[in-house]
Amino acid sequence: MNQINRVAIVGGSHGNELTGVYLVKKFHQYPNLINKTSFETLALLGNPKAIAARRRYIDKDLNRCFTVDNFQSPTSSIYEELRAKEIQQILQPQNQEFVDVIMDLHTTTANMGLCIILGNMHPFLLQLAANLSFINPLVKVYSHQQTSGSGFLRSLCPLGFAIEVGAVAQGILDAELFQQTEQLIYAILQYFEEFNQGKIPLINNTLTLYKSIGSVDYPRNEDGEIEAMIHPQLQFKDYEPLHPGDPIFLTFAGKDILYQGESTVYPVFINEAAYYEKGIAMHLSQKEWIHIS
Amino acid sequence: MNQINRVAIVGGSHGNELTGVYLVKKFHQYPNLINKTSFETLALLGNPKAIAARRRYIDKDLNRCFTVDNFQSPTSSIYEELRAKEIQQILQPQNQEFVDVIMDLHTTTANMGLCIILGNMHPFLLQLAANLSFINPLVKVYSHQQTSGSGFLRSLCPLGFAIEVGAVAQGILDAELFQQTEQLIYAILQYFEEFNQGKIPLINNTLTLYKSIGSVDYPRNEDGEIEAMIHPQLQFKDYEPLHPGDPIFLTFAGKDILYQGESTVYPVFINEAAYYEKGIAMHLSQKEWIHIS
Repeated sequence: MNQINRVAIVGGSHGNELTGVYLVKKFHQYPNLINKTSFETLALLGNPKAIAARRRYIDKDLNRCFTVDNFQSPTSSIYEELRAKEIQQILQPQNQEFVDVIMDLHTTTANMGLCIILGNMHPFLLQLAANLSFINPLVKVYSHQQTSGSGFLRSLCPLGFAIEVGAVAQGILDAELFQQTEQLIYAILQYFEEFNQGKIPLINNTLTLYKSIGSVDYPRNEDGEIEAMIHPQLQFKDYEPLHPGDPIFLTFAGKDILYQGESTVYPVFINEAAYYEKGIAMHLSQKEWIHIS
Repeated sequence: MNQINRVAIVGGSHGNELTGVYLVKKFHQYPNLINKTSFETLALLGNPKAIAARRRYIDKDLNRCFTVDNFQSPTSSIYEELRAKEIQQILQPQNQEFVDVIMDLHTTTANMGLCIILGNMHPFLLQLAANLSFINPLVKVYSHQQTSGSGFLRSLCPLGFAIEVGAVAQGILDAELFQQTEQLIYAILQYFEEFNQGKIPLINNTLTLYKSIGSVDYPRNEDGEIEAMIHPQLQFKDYEPLHPGDPIFLTFAGKDILYQGESTVYPVFINEAAYYEKGIAMHLSQKEWIHIS
């Protein structure tokens, strides 16, 4: 990677995550906010029908539709599968690489703060993440290795990543988080500009990385119905250590369920609303330190 | 009102407000939790289709469908209008009064704490509310006078009220708020039991009442699109005074919008997700003190 020429900022891949939706609308209204001298920036609304309906999706989660299978299938009646193809054609016309960077804006009901989600360990992304968390200690970095079938929008491009901000309820704007997300985007664009100009300062930094090692579902009965809630002691405690024996769930009958793992883990995406239907109460991560030089 | 004979607890009138949904399911599983010697309690899921879809409603907000117009219209293709008729037939069979009390469980993304919403000023409800807020200072009381066309479930019965708990995102359970709501319900049922037994202590109390005086919409452009967010200084500040000249909104361009009213008001339902589409950024209330003896 010698030069960033085109950057895509996508908001509203999930229609009820309003921060990204209204940031993209703001960038459409004031394009100078995201235009730089050394590269172009395209701001795009991910799922217009879901945004209009104020829902995550219409038929299917768009951010699981960017798969080779979908791109190769001749037709579909599923709105999000069609929309994923449209977005691919916008970002990668004629299957040629077009944008160098995809920044996908999300929010979560989990207390994720300002999180950069990496789908791969590209050195450029690690340097970017280290730089951002060095400038702003509120920035956390989580890596969730994507497979070819995972279908994330960010997987379209080696320099694809998500920005995940919370805790914020679906369907609302939290002005403070909106402004923090906006400033983070400007810091990222400024980083690209300085990179293109050969001005990136060599920071000697240790990147703290939360690396996904799996997920935990809610306890469920034989009908698939949940039988417990996130334990009050764990709620909003994303990135904090969960030790074997710590309470993890509270049943509706009021009984504590303890974490049965063998070693300390760092839960993230604790109590994300959209993950109840996916069978995910939280993701578990390991905390790692990576030296970036 | 001499005797409470039957009480209805309704949860999930809005399908994505999970606290009420899972409390009702718990009461179905453990009916002894809500049965008392002097009255019967019926626990009912309000909107089963919306609960299954994890959405507020399918076609239309159920909690606006309890209108005389709807009950008198011969047929409808709108799911919630049909469901409202079914619920009316369950709670008031053959148009005879059946349940004496309706307790409708809701949650909100606004920071409403544990709120009792009164639709009328029935002395029994005022005494109940005074008693509950005396026992638990976290309990707030908000009155929103209902008109015949407002269509709230609670309007089916003179002793109807809502319990509105937040801040909690749509589509999730917050265990701490779940437990607080559950304890509040038990305190209410215990109050009815003691009332029936003639044991209600005469408390000499002043009830703090937040009385609705109207609502404020978001600033919008000519297309109806919002142009501002709840101001960060107002977010989560339900029940706190808003003075003329205090910031109320922040535009996407970063400009403060100040409250232009002539006197101090007490906003509630600040930034409720479901109210964006209703044109309500918050309700305004007056703070009043009512002597209960």
